[in-house]
Amino acid sequence: MTLNIGLIGCGGIGQEHARRLQFTLNGARVVAINDLHRDAAVAFADKAQIPATFYDSADALIQAPEVQAVVVASWGPAHEEQVLACIAAGKPVFCEKPLAVTAEGARRIVEAEMKHGKNLVQVGFMRRYDAGYRALKAALDAGTVGDALLVHAAHRNPAVPEMYVGDMNITDTFIHEIDVFRWLLNDEYTSVQVIEGRKTRHAHAGLHDPVTILLETRQGIRIDTEIFVACRFGYDIQCHVVGETGVASLPEPLTVPLRSNARQGSGILMDWKLRFIESYDVELQDWINATVQGKVRGPDAWDGYVASVTAEACIEARKSKQITPINLPERPAFYA
Amino acid sequence: MTLNIGLIGCGGIGQEHARRLQFTLNGARVVAINDLHRDAAVAFADKAQIPATFYDSADALIQAPEVQAVVVASWGPAHEEQVLACIAAGKPVFCEKPLAVTAEGARRIVEAEMKHGKNLVQVGFMRRYDAGYRALKAALDAGTVGDALLVHAAHRNPAVPEMYVGDMNITDTFIHEIDVFRWLLNDEYTSVQVIEGRKTRHAHAGLHDPVTILLETRQGIRIDTEIFVACRFGYDIQCHVVGETGVASLPEPLTVPLRSNARQGSGILMDWKLRFIESYDVELQDWINATVQGKVRGPDAWDGYVASVTAEACIEARKSKQITPINLPERPAFYA
Amino acid sequence: MTLNIGLIGCGGIGQEHARRLQFTLNGARVVAINDLHRDAAVAFADKAQIPATFYDSADALIQAPEVQAVVVASWGPAHEEQVLACIAAGKPVFCEKPLAVTAEGARRIVEAEMKHGKNLVQVGFMRRYDAGYRALKAALDAGTVGDALLVHAAHRNPAVPEMYVGDMNITDTFIHEIDVFRWLLNDEYTSVQVIEGRKTRHAHAGLHDPVTILLETRQGIRIDTEIFVACRFGYDIQCHVVGETGVASLPEPLTVPLRSNARQGSGILMDWKLRFIESYDVELQDWINATVQGKVRGPDAWDGYVASVTAEACIEARKSKQITPINLPERPAFYA
Amino acid sequence: MTLNIGLIGCGGIGQEHARRLQFTLNGARVVAINDLHRDAAVAFADKAQIPATFYDSADALIQAPEVQAVVVASWGPAHEEQVLACIAAGKPVFCEKPLAVTAEGARRIVEAEMKHGKNLVQVGFMRRYDAGYRALKAALDAGTVGDALLVHAAHRNPAVPEMYVGDMNITDTFIHEIDVFRWLLNDEYTSVQVIEGRKTRHAHAGLHDPVTILLETRQGIRIDTEIFVACRFGYDIQCHVVGETGVASLPEPLTVPLRSNARQGSGILMDWKLRFIESYDVELQDWINATVQGKVRGPDAWDGYVASVTAEACIEARKSKQITPINLPERPAFYA
Ligand SMILES: [Mg+2]
Ligand SMILES: [Mg+2]
Ligand SMILES: [Mg+2]
Ligand SMILES: [Mg+2]
Repeated sequence: MTLNIGLIGCGGIGQEHARRLQFTLNGARVVAINDLHRDAAVAFADKAQIPATFYDSADALIQAPEVQAVVVASWGPAHEEQVLACIAAGKPVFCEKPLAVTAEGARRIVEAEMKHGKNLVQVGFMRRYDAGYRALKAALDAGTVGDALLVHAAHRNPAVPEMYVGDMNITDTFIHEIDVFRWLLNDEYTSVQVIEGRKTRHAHAGLHDPVTILLETRQGIRIDTEIFVACRFGYDIQCHVVGETGVASLPEPLTVPLRSNARQGSGILMDWKLRFIESYDVELQDWINATVQGKVRGPDAWDGYVASVTAEACIEARKSKQITPINLPERPAFYA
Repeated sequence: MTLNIGLIGCGGIGQEHARRLQFTLNGARVVAINDLHRDAAVAFADKAQIPATFYDSADALIQAPEVQAVVVASWGPAHEEQVLACIAAGKPVFCEKPLAVTAEGARRIVEAEMKHGKNLVQVGFMRRYDAGYRALKAALDAGTVGDALLVHAAHRNPAVPEMYVGDMNITDTFIHEIDVFRWLLNDEYTSVQVIEGRKTRHAHAGLHDPVTILLETRQGIRIDTEIFVACRFGYDIQCHVVGETGVASLPEPLTVPLRSNARQGSGILMDWKLRFIESYDVELQDWINATVQGKVRGPDAWDGYVASVTAEACIEARKSKQITPINLPERPAFYA
Repeated sequence: MTLNIGLIGCGGIGQEHARRLQFTLNGARVVAINDLHRDAAVAFADKAQIPATFYDSADALIQAPEVQAVVVASWGPAHEEQVLACIAAGKPVFCEKPLAVTAEGARRIVEAEMKHGKNLVQVGFMRRYDAGYRALKAALDAGTVGDALLVHAAHRNPAVPEMYVGDMNITDTFIHEIDVFRWLLNDEYTSVQVIEGRKTRHAHAGLHDPVTILLETRQGIRIDTEIFVACRFGYDIQCHVVGETGVASLPEPLTVPLRSNARQGSGILMDWKLRFIESYDVELQDWINATVQGKVRGPDAWDGYVASVTAEACIEARKSKQITPINLPERPAFYA
Repeated sequence: MTLNIGLIGCGGIGQEHARRLQFTLNGARVVAINDLHRDAAVAFADKAQIPATFYDSADALIQAPEVQAVVVASWGPAHEEQVLACIAAGKPVFCEKPLAVTAEGARRIVEAEMKHGKNLVQVGFMRRYDAGYRALKAALDAGTVGDALLVHAAHRNPAVPEMYVGDMNITDTFIHEIDVFRWLLNDEYTSVQVIEGRKTRHAHAGLHDPVTILLETRQGIRIDTEIFVACRFGYDIQCHVVGETGVASLPEPLTVPLRSNARQGSGILMDWKLRFIESYDVELQDWINATVQGKVRGPDAWDGYVASVTAEACIEARKSKQITPINLPERPAFYA
């Protein structure tokens, strides 16, 4: 059986998802598209040879009888309403991050889904599908280094555009760590502290860079993450989990070891888009397979909500310079 | 469009190919199967939920009108006849290695295909689809280390079964290096020397292990390969290309870096099946895509023939202990 | 010329120093020894073939006319008095850490030395002489990664004895990091925070392990150090300096790369004594050479004092769980 | 006791040895010097503050009563006569490589020393004192990877001067591998083959570069060494010993791991002088200590002779392109 998908949002990530759903993955096809820019979306579908019907509104696409499941790749502020419409229509939806631009909005989705009574929503936290993180989680779950005690992490970007300012190193960058660490550790956060130290001369005016973010979990695990988005040298994701008997680390992405120019070693990616590109395929294939089985197997609405709550606590902690509690209700049995 | 595939041979590799064609890859389905063991094949297809018709003979399957392309995963001695039948039927065929059990047999396939007038045959040399080898080839083709001068390689296996004897370290093991180096270097071999040195106590009686094989190419590149199939410590494929300005190496497969038990580093696979498992997906997806376009893009019948000729020269070189010429006709324009 | 040395304290480290001064290093000999245990000390000197005179008191040894310089390797609580006696006698002294067991005691040494008017005191912070730290400092000083912004460090021990409790992970362990980071960064500390997270089950009752210590410097550099003394897997010293254009790390100690038992990589030392053993030779040779020239070139009394003040602030920070200021007077010109 | 040393040859290596004997090592001093260039030698000694007597001839220096042991650092063609004179005078001698410029000359030294009846001669093969090679040998001797079966090695130089031509990649470069492998493996060579493959465009006219040299030992161990002296990228010494249960490798020299400019890894030395600089200290200290005890503990005259015989066989093998036997008499009991 082939899953008929409606795609909302035909920008960069939307086009990539359309191509992989249609030509790379197994068991799905794109039958409907919607975008604010009709002409561009139709031109894209023509050129890509994806015979999908264009709908003038997200809502119309969601309602269309031939659409069995929805992929939301529109801009962030539209997500909440579109996901709520999918829930109302009882259709499975894969929503790119963020699930909503506020924790309150994410909360509304959680409540609507629970009221609807069936899991429908997956959020696009693709790192959970990265081969490296999965191998690390498998090693941790197998007890290879004993119980986790500490995590040392880094999220480094060579540079960011001028429009990247303020809290974006939390909402756009650290948000990935927020989701992936609690999944990796099977744990929840209880407090956060944000430290702004010496600023690099390569950061632009509206951004304090680097920062260090300290998370504490219910089990007492301490996680320190360096967020450094003007590091110049590469897109570099580090994660080292210190357990009771050893340290397990996130594997480096595959590169060709070189001995040249008085140096030996491997390359570091400069383009962040390449780092997790394969995980999108794994993520959406798993979503298709689970959807066909009537399940949500990936990060769900609750995960999206927790990420929003945590990000808001990080922002507050940065302002207050205090150790800031992260108050989360218990995970409802619905999301167990 | 979906490519309808007939599968000949439902043993281990055949079953894996069936599953990936049906449930993992894009654009194909298995519509027909054949195997010496009817009941087992039918039971497999049922259990795997692959609604394919069973054919009592390879020939009947090849002739079946709904079969648009064939995958040959039967045992080696049957390959030549089955591939020739595919050519006679004008149907694209993906044949697991070896293309034929003799160079002479491979030559007959080459001649039949040329006579037919259209490329139809691809041979299952999956290493060309491994992400590591592809990254290495890309680095070499980009001139990262200048022109290649030397290659240092190793093919190590922790152990081999009792039935693995005699020349099997050439025909079953080194055959992969034979194919992949000439592809990697865009070159052809001119001579080979085989050196049997000190034998490990862990090799069984019928096998001299390890051996070192020296290949020379038309450009004068010298390749030394250690074949060591009772090395105990892991399945370990090494390839270091020394160029005029540096050394580029095959990346290690992804594993979790660990610090534990007074050691730091990464794991080495013990199971060879895991090393290139992802390359099978890439290989067959590329074959599907090329087949739909009416092309052969991967290793072709000529490559299969060259591998056979080279393997036979290696066997002769081992017996004679001499530097043995490898005499290859020029690649016909048909295979350019 | 040969420097005549008097050694106070013939325990483990004292005996090692005696041997290296006499038989390994250039330009010195041990002419006098003192220890609380006369017989053991004399027996050691006999067996080691070091023809030194035994003195019944540290003071007598310091006063002895043939003694040109003193090495203090007695137990910590005796250091202050012995170093003050050397200053009073106008004799150069190399004092193993700690310079004194309180910051106040170290302060008295600083004041006595300044009053004396000539530098005489070196403290045994041997890491400054480790080839790895020196290479790292050279790289930083050369601007290889631009200005330092962050330091990520770890000090891991496989296990500690039962008597190692309470604040010893600061006073005996972290004290080395305290000295080496300010030397590495050419900077001074301004605050400290100590975080006690999840405790390993392998730590004994009287010890919270691991802990994370955060230091801030005048330049705003943020240093996080994991102190983990029951880590089980090895003696493992990590130091990664994140600069404006890259990351420079402390080299791992030399070990034989191995591929064996399904793992590849290098060994990690289990015995801390081996990690910096070569730096003791470099340290004392440099001390001999500087002493002969009438100079103090290594870590001086001020460095010993700063280490004590910082360690006391760490202890206070651990108790208060607060970010705790480190108040240091300006370095006197005398120690510039 | 201090060993009084006479130094023959005050060129680059002679001056370095003089300084380390006088100011770095323990238990020796330079009391006499000789060189073809009197004024330069005297000026050097003055400037270096080494109060040694100048002798007008090597012979006079060797005879001088205050000279207890001799270091020969003159040019190669003078070595044989000077070493023979030391033997005649019954004085211990450390002779830089080569022991003699022909195998025949080395043979005369062996015979003279045996006739004299006491070991006096050490040859300056410093690699045996390198910390990396020693760690590798310790691992092999401990059985870490089982019995050795194969060795893969490389000796790479970024570039060589115009005067480096012809067989110098054997006599000046590979000579180090010749000595160190038989020491590492406790074995002797039985044959050699030299393969000249594709020549790099960066080699000058009088030199075939790179070459591959294959050695066979009595135990059947096969050693392949790449000699590549215009490799451009660095001075890079590789040695991987494949044993029955694993692979043990020569550690890389200590360098600072860096992440910068889209690369991660370590530096490779460009200056060969730095690679083994510490081993000279260890080598000469061990020679001093053994000499004082009346012993020769390092590479002896027999080792120098074996190196010469092997180098001559390599040269013959290069010319003949044949597998060439290496015929060595049994090691005399005198050198056991
Ligand atoms: Mg995503
Ligand atoms: Mg294959
Ligand atoms: Mg010390
Ligand atoms: Mg030497």
